[in-house]
Amino acid sequence: MRLKKYGLNPARIHHIFISHLHGDHVFGLFGLLSTLGMMGRKVPVHLYGPHALEEFMDYYSRFFGPLPFELSIKSPQDKEDFIFESDTITVTAIPLKHRTPAFGYLFREKSKPLNVIKEQIEVYGLGIADVVKVKRGEDFITKSGELIPCSRLTLPPFHRRSYAYISDTAYDPGLAEKVKGVDLLFHEATFSEKDKKLAALTLHSTAAQAATIAKMAGVRQLLIGHFSTRYKDPVQLEEEAKEIFTHTVGVKDGDLYSLPLKRVSGE
Amino acid sequence: MRLKKYGLNPARIHHIFISHLHGDHVFGLFGLLSTLGMMGRKVPVHLYGPHALEEFMDYYSRFFGPLPFELSIKSPQDKEDFIFESDTITVTAIPLKHRTPAFGYLFREKSKPLNVIKEQIEVYGLGIADVVKVKRGEDFITKSGELIPCSRLTLPPFHRRSYAYISDTAYDPGLAEKVKGVDLLFHEATFSEKDKKLAALTLHSTAAQAATIAKMAGVRQLLIGHFSTRYKDPVQLEEEAKEIFTHTVGVKDGDLYSLPLKRVSGE
Repeated sequence: MRLKKYGLNPARIHHIFISHLHGDHVFGLFGLLSTLGMMGRKVPVHLYGPHALEEFMDYYSRFFGPLPFELSIKSPQDKEDFIFESDTITVTAIPLKHRTPAFGYLFREKSKPLNVIKEQIEVYGLGIADVVKVKRGEDFITKSGELIPCSRLTLPPFHRRSYAYISDTAYDPGLAEKVKGVDLLFHEATFSEKDKKLAALTLHSTAAQAATIAKMAGVRQLLIGHFSTRYKDPVQLEEEAKEIFTHTVGVKDGDLYSLPLKRVSGE
Repeated sequence: MRLKKYGLNPARIHHIFISHLHGDHVFGLFGLLSTLGMMGRKVPVHLYGPHALEEFMDYYSRFFGPLPFELSIKSPQDKEDFIFESDTITVTAIPLKHRTPAFGYLFREKSKPLNVIKEQIEVYGLGIADVVKVKRGEDFITKSGELIPCSRLTLPPFHRRSYAYISDTAYDPGLAEKVKGVDLLFHEATFSEKDKKLAALTLHSTAAQAATIAKMAGVRQLLIGHFSTRYKDPVQLEEEAKEIFTHTVGVKDGDLYSLPLKRVSGE
């Protein structure tokens, strides 16, 4: 129902990354999978999450019968774990410190094929096989033996975008190294710094702690969320984080944040 | 979230009646109970539903830990079963014909104490103990031995309202007797009569079948819903039912239908 509300097509979902088995992070899964089944889903759905996820899904089939599509479940090891790779992205699981096994996920784009400049194809007389090689980043050697560097034949490459999703977790300075330099970091900020003790007790983070991770990691942009309902106005949490890391935005479920595709300049 | 959307306070919920363990009827339960726990619920919650409900709830505590309030679970027998009674209502479970054990529920108001007419108290000299008796429906005998009938001392009694919820079920003419004369009947109408075979195959009902039950049972008002998404405009299902039973309304989740409290006239 939330996907429908946000105008997202569930049929386009192929991979689902579950952080941990607490209700607010997993209760929607049964409904989503059930809806996919009702929609006539045929292609597989891939789930990633803590080991207990497999047992959790066993109960789905036990009570609600088999799903009409293949469901694969993969659990990261309890260390930084490269768990998924497609033609375009890689995903690494990052163990978090929470009351139950939990993982963050780092999504990193792969290099896209280079865009060859049409005029240069004619100028240097590249064949189809040559273009394929240049798109991969290879230089070109003309029939007369002259080496034309790839960079002269192509537009600057696209920046490889990266996004890290970190929720739920206690403050863990070790995370900064793992999400170093990402374009976009979502980090939970359940509490305000004034409720720091409660955060430590429940293995959650404060807005200031989320900002500290972002600052240490040198990310471009920080998104904070997963706010406790005790804060009537989450703007106070955003303000708290901004004092430490300026590029912070407080977000809520359904907010959309786009990372524009940019060419690397000066290369 | 739906309760919030409809402006309903979850803390006011004490009894939850589950028809059957199919996703669209039970997936919301974990979230609701979890929310009640988060809200600091202390008083018990009573669940009613098929036997498997108990095992289903075992998995809640297994994965998400114990709830901070008592949860009682009661399963109706596989026959018409009087399962709940309070000061004001009774609830009877009605077995349905579906692909998994399923129950409808009949909610019936008990008689309310009669309202004694103040002027008559003075006229006939009733004491406090007399008023209590008259409220229960007893006649009054004056000191001089004259019998004053209860009906002369009180306003006409309130009509005892009744509501039957029947979903999901195949067409079952035997249901008519069980919901005979209720004020309000919700009966599922997943399909149109033109998809009658599909209804029989999936053990669901058509709009015409729901209307037939309402007509046979002589109910005052029929609500139909649980429409298959294959019907772009559910008005066609409402029209189909209305041809058989005029007092039919097509409803969707969150619609509110009130049964006004009325005194029985001419008594």
